[in-house]
Formats: sequence, C-alpha cells, structure tokens
Amino acid sequence: MEAMTYTITFKVEGSKDLRVPAVPGTTLLEAAKQANLAIDAPCSGNGTCGKCRVQVLSGEVESMETRHISPEEYSQGYRLACSSTIRSDLTVAVPAGALAYQSRMKVTDLSTGREQGIFAALQEELRDLSFWGDHGLSLVGVHLKSPALDDARADRERLLWDLAEQIQSTGESIRFSLHALRRLPQVLRGADFSCTVVLRQDPDQKYTVLDIFPEAAGENAAPVLAGLAIDIGTTSVSILLVNLQTGAALAVGSAGNGQIRYGADVINRIIESTRPGGLGRLHKAVSDECIEPLIRQICHTAGLPPECIYRVVVAANTTMTHLFLGVPAEHLRLEPYVPAFFATGTLRGTDLGLRVHPDAEVEIAPSIGSYVGGDITAGAFSSMIFRKEPLSLLIDLGTNGELVFGNGEFLMACACSAGPAFEGGDISCGMRATDGAIEACTIDGQTLEPAFRIIGPEGQKPLGLCGSGLIDTIGELFHYGIINAKGRITHEGKRTFRDEWGIGGYILAFAQESESGRDIILTETDIDNFIRAKGAIFSAIRTMLTMLDFSIDAVEAVYVSGGIGSGINVKNAIRIGMFPNLPLEQYHYIGNSSLSGAYGMLMSRSATEKVLEIGRGMTYLELSSHPSYMDEFVAACFIPHTDGTLFSLDA
Amino acid sequence: MEAMTYTITFKVEGSKDLRVPAVPGTTLLEAAKQANLAIDAPCSGNGTCGKCRVQVLSGEVESMETRHISPEEYSQGYRLACSSTIRSDLTVAVPAGALAYQSRMKVTDLSTGREQGIFAALQEELRDLSFWGDHGLSLVGVHLKSPALDDARADRERLLWDLAEQIQSTGESIRFSLHALRRLPQVLRGADFSCTVVLRQDPDQKYTVLDIFPEAAGENAAPVLAGLAIDIGTTSVSILLVNLQTGAALAVGSAGNGQIRYGADVINRIIESTRPGGLGRLHKAVSDECIEPLIRQICHTAGLPPECIYRVVVAANTTMTHLFLGVPAEHLRLEPYVPAFFATGTLRGTDLGLRVHPDAEVEIAPSIGSYVGGDITAGAFSSMIFRKEPLSLLIDLGTNGELVFGNGEFLMACACSAGPAFEGGDISCGMRATDGAIEACTIDGQTLEPAFRIIGPEGQKPLGLCGSGLIDTIGELFHYGIINAKGRITHEGKRTFRDEWGIGGYILAFAQESESGRDIILTETDIDNFIRAKGAIFSAIRTMLTMLDFSIDAVEAVYVSGGIGSGINVKNAIRIGMFPNLPLEQYHYIGNSSLSGAYGMLMSRSATEKVLEIGRGMTYLELSSHPSYMDEFVAACFIPHTDGTLFSLDA
Repeated sequence: MEAMTYTITFKVEGSKDLRVPAVPGTTLLEAAKQANLAIDAPCSGNGTCGKCRVQVLSGEVESMETRHISPEEYSQGYRLACSSTIRSDLTVAVPAGALAYQSRMKVTDLSTGREQGIFAALQEELRDLSFWGDHGLSLVGVHLKSPALDDARADRERLLWDLAEQIQSTGESIRFSLHALRRLPQVLRGADFSCTVVLRQDPDQKYTVLDIFPEAAGENAAPVLAGLAIDIGTTSVSILLVNLQTGAALAVGSAGNGQIRYGADVINRIIESTRPGGLGRLHKAVSDECIEPLIRQICHTAGLPPECIYRVVVAANTTMTHLFLGVPAEHLRLEPYVPAFFATGTLRGTDLGLRVHPDAEVEIAPSIGSYVGGDITAGAFSSMIFRKEPLSLLIDLGTNGELVFGNGEFLMACACSAGPAFEGGDISCGMRATDGAIEACTIDGQTLEPAFRIIGPEGQKPLGLCGSGLIDTIGELFHYGIINAKGRITHEGKRTFRDEWGIGGYILAFAQESESGRDIILTETDIDNFIRAKGAIFSAIRTMLTMLDFSIDAVEAVYVSGGIGSGINVKNAIRIGMFPNLPLEQYHYIGNSSLSGAYGMLMSRSATEKVLEIGRGMTYLELSSHPSYMDEFVAACFIPHTDGTLFSLDA
Repeated sequence: MEAMTYTITFKVEGSKDLRVPAVPGTTLLEAAKQANLAIDAPCSGNGTCGKCRVQVLSGEVESMETRHISPEEYSQGYRLACSSTIRSDLTVAVPAGALAYQSRMKVTDLSTGREQGIFAALQEELRDLSFWGDHGLSLVGVHLKSPALDDARADRERLLWDLAEQIQSTGESIRFSLHALRRLPQVLRGADFSCTVVLRQDPDQKYTVLDIFPEAAGENAAPVLAGLAIDIGTTSVSILLVNLQTGAALAVGSAGNGQIRYGADVINRIIESTRPGGLGRLHKAVSDECIEPLIRQICHTAGLPPECIYRVVVAANTTMTHLFLGVPAEHLRLEPYVPAFFATGTLRGTDLGLRVHPDAEVEIAPSIGSYVGGDITAGAFSSMIFRKEPLSLLIDLGTNGELVFGNGEFLMACACSAGPAFEGGDISCGMRATDGAIEACTIDGQTLEPAFRIIGPEGQKPLGLCGSGLIDTIGELFHYGIINAKGRITHEGKRTFRDEWGIGGYILAFAQESESGRDIILTETDIDNFIRAKGAIFSAIRTMLTMLDFSIDAVEAVYVSGGIGSGINVKNAIRIGMFPNLPLEQYHYIGNSSLSGAYGMLMSRSATEKVLEIGRGMTYLELSSHPSYMDEFVAACFIPHTDGTLFSLDA
C-alpha cells in the first residue's frame, strides 16, 4: 500500500507558491524544509523561540498550545510551523518575518563606507607587510612562429619551448592545464600565434599554464587574474571577487547559508548530516544552492567568466568547513571533539565541483579545534594581533562567539556558548539583522520613550530587535532604571506591563507602529536569555585572562568583528557587562575578519602560510572543561556583573 | 511553422526497437546516427562500399540505384541506408551484418593462449629491464593512538605526523586527496585507528595519501592497487585492469568505439568534431558510452570499486587522443597538419571525468605527428626495438597502417594510407573481424575449392572476409593462377564469373552456404582496392628504407601488431607483395602493441619516461610529401610487385 500524502502549498510574499507532498503527521516546518523553504527556527523546532509563526489559510493541522500565539491569532489560523502536524491538504501563508533570511540581509561585505575604509586600511597593512601579490599567478606574453610543413611542432610543444626560454626554466617543469590545452589550437590561430598565457608558479619552481588568451591589443582587453575569497558563516555566506593583480575588489555578494533549513546552529546541522544522505544534502545546500549562484552573480556583475577565477580561499568555522568539503562532521560534537582535519593542504577547483577554473588552487583556512575554525585563524590574521606587542583581544560575534587573546608571543582561542541571542534566537522579538530590525535604540531619560535606527529602506517600520539593538535596548533600560541588575522590570508606566503569569515586559513598539501589526515586546524571559549570552562572553574573556594570569586591564586593544559587530554600541556593551570595561578608544571594529583574512590569504601565499602558522601555534582552550568557568559565568549573569568594580565606568 | 517529421523505427535482432523522429530528406544512415545505432559505413556514406544494406519493411524511401542491391533484393525492400532518403514514416530492419560492431568482435585482449604467451613474455622483458613496479604507489600500515580529551589532534594531522615519521619525510611534503579526507573519520574509527594507507610518492619526493582502508586482518582483505591500460582504436577500444603490485591482469574488456557512427575513419570523425557540439559528442561517444561502461564491467568482473584505480595510461592515435581529451582536432587534417599537442604531461582522473580515483595519475602516450600517435610510440616501446642493435621494422595494422623502422640508434615512423581494406572497407564482401568473418582461407590445388577458418561459434556460416582472410584468399588465388599479377580473373570454372559489365569475380561461398543467404563474392574491383592497400604498405616500407639508404635485406626483424595481425598468414602476405620477402622466422607477431605499451607505462614511471623519450626522438616521415613515394606505390600495385626480384620466395 502506498503511503497517503497531502499536498501542502506555501504562499510567500514576492515568490511563487511552493507545493510539496507530505505524509500525515509531518510538521509544517519539516514540510517547508522539503520545499527548500527556510523558515526561521533558531530554537531548532523546539517550540520555544516562536519565530516560525505561519498562518494556515485552509486545511487542518494539529498544534500544541504556545504562549507565542494569542487566542485571537489562533482563531485567525496562526500557528508555529514546528509545533503543527499536518492533517489534510493545506494552504499556508509564510510572513516575511518567519523567513530565515531575506535578500536584503545585512552582511559585512564592503557595502558601507565604513567597511570600505576598513578594507582600504587592511590593503595598506598587507602591502606594508609584503603579504601582497605573491600568489604565483602572472601573465606572460608569447609570440610564436606559425607552423609550417617544415616546422610541424604541435601547439603545446611550440608554446612550451618558447615559454621555457622566456621564464628561464625547462620544459619538464611546465605543465598544461587540460583547460588550456583544449583552448590552445583555436586561441593560437585566432591571434596569429601571439598570445597571453596565464601562468602559475608553484613554490617548488614548477609552473602550470592555466589558460591562454589572444594578446591584449586592439579589441582584446588583457585577461583578468581573478580570485575569490569566501566566508561561509553558519547563517550567511559572503564572497568577494578580487583582481589579483591590483588587489581591487571587483564585486561582492552575500546570501543566507542554504543549510539553515536543516537547523540554525552547527549542532543541528551536524545531526542532520549524519542522517542518510544528509552530508550530501548539507554540502549541496551551501555549495550548489548558495556559493554557485553567488559566483555566477558576482561574475556577471564584474563581466568575467568564472573560469577566470584562478585562486580561491575559504574561511569558515570547523563545522562549515567539514560540510562544505563533504567530510563527515559527526565527531565534532562527540567527545573528545576531534575534527577530521585542522588543515587540508591546497585543493583544486574540480575537487570541490566549484565552477571556477578547474585547476584553481583552493586554500582553506585551518581550524584549531571543533569549535574554533578557519574563520578565527583567518580573523586573527586580519586583526594582525599576531604581530603586535600589546596584548590584544579579538571578539568575533557571529552565530557563535569566539575569542582570541594574545600578541606576537602567543595566541589563545576559545569559543563561548553565547547561543543564538545575538541573532535573534531565544528572544521573542529577536531577529537577524535584516529589513525591519531595530539595530540601534536610545531611550529618552525624561519620557522613557524609545527611538530607533531601523535596517531597511526609508520609512521601514520595526519588526523586531537584532543583536546590536538588543544590547542598546537592555543597556538603556538598565541605565534608566527600568530594569534592575537581575533584568527584572522595576518601573510601571505606559510601556511596561506584567502578564497573567507574572512575567514583566517592555513594549518597544505598539501594534500600530510595527510592521507586523503586533506589539514588539521584550520580556523578562528574553532579558534572562540575553543576560546568559552576554555573561557567556564576558566570563569566557575573564576565564581565559585569569588562566593566563592577566587582569582585564592588561588588555591594550580589543578588536570586534563579525556581523553583529557592525552596528554595536560599545559603550552599551560595556554598560551591561558584556565587553570589558576599557577605554572606548581601545576598541576597534574590524568588520568581517573572516572574509578579510581570506582576502589576505588570496592575495599572498606567504599570508596563507602565516595563517597556517597561526593555526599551528594557537592554543585552544576548551572552556567547558575548565574548572573556574562555571563560577565566572554565574557571576557574569547580572547587569553588569556581581563584581561591580569591574564596570565602574561612568555611563 | 514546425518542421514536419517522420518517425523511423529501426528493428535490430536481439535489441529493442529504436524510434527516432526525422525530417523528410534525411538519409536512413543519418537517422540511424540520431538513434545512436552504428550502421557500418566504412566508405562514410558515399554509396560505394555497400555495407549499410538495410531492409525497408514499411514506408517510402527514395534511393539511388546501386550495384550492391539486385533487382530482386530491391523488390524485397533492400536499400543502402546511406543512399536512401526518408519520404514517410518507416520501419527498417537492420541485419546483423550491417552493424558496425558486435558484442563478439574479435580484439586483441589476452583472450587467447597466444595472446597470453605474448603477455607473459612482455612481463618478463619489462622486469628484466627494470621497467617494473616504479609507479610510485604503495600501501603503508599505520597504527595510531586513539584521540582523547588531552590529545584532540584532528584525524588528518594525527595520521600525517605518524606517516611522516614512518616514511622519514616531513608533514609539508604529504598531501591528502579530498577522497581520502572524506573517508578518514569513518575508516579510522571503524578500524580502531589501525589502517592501511594508499600512498603515492612523486618523483620530487612529495607524497599523496590517496585512500585509507581498515588494516588487513580477519575479514579485511588488503586493498588492491589497481591500474588501467586503455587502447583507444578508431574501431575498437580495449582496456586492461591490472594489479599494480603483482603486474597481473585482473580483467580485460573491449568494445566498439562508439564514435564509429560518426564515421569509420579519423578524417570523418574530425569533420564531425568541427560541427556545432561535435567535439562534445565525439568525446562522449568514446568516453561516456564506451570507456565508462567498460570500466564498470571489468571492475565488476574483478570485484573492485573503480575508486581503486589509482593510475591510468591511455594509448591512441593522434585523432583519438585529441577527441578523448576534448581537444579540437581539426588542424590535424589541415596543412601543415599540426596537432594541439604531442605530449600532455600527467593528468588527473577528474580532468577526464573518468570514474576512477579522482586523484589517479593519467598518462597519455605521446604522439609524434598528426598521423603517428601514442599507439605507435607505446607500440614501439612494447616491441623493444628501441633497445636492439639489429635493424627492426614494426608494422602496426589497425584501421590505419603505421610503420616504425630503426634500432637502438634511431627510429623513424610513418603512416601509410592503406585505407580501410583490411577492416573490410572498399571490399564488397569485406567485413571486420567479427562473427562470420573468414579469417583464414586455403584453396585446394586440384579442385580449386576453398576451405575456411571462420570467426564465431561452432557451425558458424561465413558472412564475408576480414583482413587476414582477404590476404589468404588473394594469395591463394594468385598462387593457383586464378588471378594474374594485375588481379584479373584468368580462369574459368564453377567458382569464377564475369558479369554484364565485364567485371570478373570469384565465388567464395554460394548463397546456400552463407550466413546471409547471398553469394559471397570477391570481384576484380575488390581485388584492385586490396592491391592498392597492400601496395601502400609495401611502398611505405620501401620509401622509408630507401630514404635511409637501406635495402629490404637490411631488416633483421619484423614485428607485426594490431588486430589484423592476429590471424595473418605471413607467408601469404609476402606472396602477394604486402610484407617484405624475409625469412619467416624473422617475423614476430606481438599482439596489440598499443595496449602492451600502455601496460608497460602503467607498471612503471621509467617506462613512461622511456615512451616520452621515444616520442621525442622518433623522426616523423610524411610520405605524401616525399618525392619517390608515388613511384614506389605504383610499382607496388601488382602481385607481388613490378620488380619480381623483390619476391623471389618459393611459395
């Protein structure tokens, strides 16, 4: 007997309807996954975050009761997709707010003047340090004798001997990419045997002819040696197309990581990857569905064929690196937490099935442990703390939080279990930094009315709070005494309330002011969750420093990076006890340090070697096995901290 | 308006019916091509060879008149597929004899005791010369410490450091194939961290970990290091799966070259390759449709996964090499006849899209000119004439004829335009060496009745003459005075005739004795065509020798190779003036020298280097531009020759 299936139709604003078959008992969230529709579920479908609100327009589902849906909303068909099982054919509307990512998602990709300034400074620093241009790729002009009956040398050998003489090498040390070989006869004859060759010199003095073009003259522009830096984050992917001769950014692109429909965090992705066919699905979700279209898009923008990409660098956390390469990741989450690899060595374009030059060198930033990956080693490189004398701290705030501390003498790194709060998880009105997110908030000391900066076009109404907005809001609420050190509402007024279960809250925006038509509220439960997240970061910093016998004051510079870092108000982050109480001028925002590090590696093999060296030399601190970490964490779960002397800053 | 199309149904014995749409005016041969049905057309569809006889069962075609179809046959619907254009929906029967190749096609692939003897002798010779086992591949056992919380090194690095110590190398000089990396975590843990690694050592002292297996013990057999030798002929493809540790042949396979439907000879293939999408079609026809299934088949036979193939060597003529690699071949046939490459350097499995280990090294035997390819350089290697003092001649008779002459001091090679006669082309009763082919013929001196050896199962009736049978028949006809030196019938009897146009012929088999139910006849036109073919070979030998100031007698050894060579009767080949008049004991049949040479290259990198050296050192003689060649050719177009003293052998 064939299993009975229902047809589920998802309606998404601005997209075509999606139809999938589903067997009875499937949840709406699972059905959406089948439809390749990424509904936001940072709690991974446990029914706790309330992000996956959808509206059932027709048909029958069986849903668990939840505080996230009011009786009125319930009667209108609103349900949590994760907690609703399918009982008939269905038509389901998916509001924009329930989508895990949107096209205008804010990522760190040189789209702002600030980012561009950071990029220009990085380029200058790389040049100064000679991490520049030694990628081995160059263009060589050749002018060959045309073949004749008495000189019937084959095209390859004709070119080879000329080239060997020009570069003062031997024929044996030059190999031809099959790609070049295939183009050779036509290109040579189309250009009267005067051509430009794309040559790669390897460190062992061997050469590869990667491609051949007609000599640049008249209509023929000189070929572009392009490279690609890729940052694969758990939530989003950014890529940067670079002219390897000038170092200029030719195009940038970013998109949500297609794996998000299999889970918001790395643990859920790893679990999915161990299911039958799961590793292939996760690989495909990031590679075929995300990176490939991005490559097409940026190449289109830059007017270059993807085969002109001769060098690729990928920086990602350990799990993302494994899944991108199609390497089993399950042991990352099983004691003793051992990755399949720290470094991979140089790979080739075709290894990864990427539509770049088949012989492109692909470098992968090395990991140092299951939870400190290539994004951090690359980030530590781009922060340049490895070459400075002052003790510095790198705080990378992405989907996970990671820290690096040290200087030119030593480097130590750890991952803090900050959880998803900074990306909107575990916060009822939390959201990622996309359109409608409140990214900055101030509260008027007199009226206690809030004012916002909102991501999106002019006139955008608020939809929720992203990480930086959350820090601001809680900082301001605490500053004006609306909440106390434990995060409890201590003020009664127009914008505060206490519900029937005794849980207090603050109303950021009333229904009529908000994009969704629902109140945007921050509850004491949300604040608790946030406090644990910020506590995790600060306690990680303290544990690492204490372990190395340093006090907070020993830190002479703090580099903040990552998507959340972009909009962050450091003063507020200190005020709530998330960042150490250091002079503001010691803080430096350095953008997407993972992508910047990948860029550095792209431009230079010695930079690549340096990142590998950083990886080999960096000590990995496993916080969970450190005896004093739990005490530090508990102490940090106050605003700002149980030890008030740590945050005596006059705010 | 959409173009009108008809539906053509091809009925082939033992196969499913094939249906294709065809526009009016298409020939049946073209329609068959569309249906991927390889109808034999050695004359490339000019209507001259008569091989493409099909029977129209229903529907209407417009056909040119031809001597190959009798009025009676015409009334039964017999037509030449190449000369019949489509005028309606059609049902067409394709007789077995019209198919370009059949499953039982006779190829040189170790299937006979004689071939096996040749193979064993080659192995011994390779061993003696130390062209043996230096392919760089080996198995290394590793016994690693299991990871623990205080030893959380990644799998790759754990293995790398152990391996580096064992082989006394550095970690930097060892790279991991992505294939091995992907298998690493599971294999290590499934085998308690005791494993066997497939390691390749490169000439520059770098290493690649290609694969990893559980340690051989108990149920786990030791992994097999397999290699693949491939001979791509214009007509058929042979492959040999080899155990690289022992040199043993694990399995052999052969199939018709799928490109045959685009033309019987290299010129027609090149022309097809220049049509839109043609290069891709020809590449696919040999690679996806022929080599891939053969690999699957022999791996199944040997019980090995294709990923165990770590080394591949391909030997083929220049055109086949270009088309197999997807490199444009059109300049091979345009003056000054320049290939895109002589050698390619080492390629990788993934370059070619072959389903072998993705990092398998692929070596291609080098060409020395447009019409002397890797089959000849590999063949010259396996003949070992390059290391002998006596002057030797290699005659390779495949779809083309090629010659190599020389010794340890020098080598010269040329291609003779022998045409397709030895494979049945241009001969009315000619056919390839498949079931039903007469491969040997003797004529009774008294009765003048013929006796045959026929390829195929017991009781197989004759269908036509293959190359060796043709040589025998003409040799015997001449010997018993049935034909004269010009190839004219000079005898009247039961088996001879002269038709209404005055063309004489000899009846090899009467209708009732033949498989097709038609007389098998050899006409004076056929004999003319054959004389030109054998004349091309002998005159090529003479021209080359004369040019080097040698007489025929200077040749001390003749090595005969190729498919046709297998059944050849050397005495008859001398009698008709095809082979030089030398003592029979100076002739040595060496089988498929292209495949043998590929086998040598597979077993040894120094053998590969030697073949490359042979290629670089071999002089290419372009016969067509040689002034005395035409005179030599005309003189050789007699049986045995205009200069009778050259063939004073008492036959």
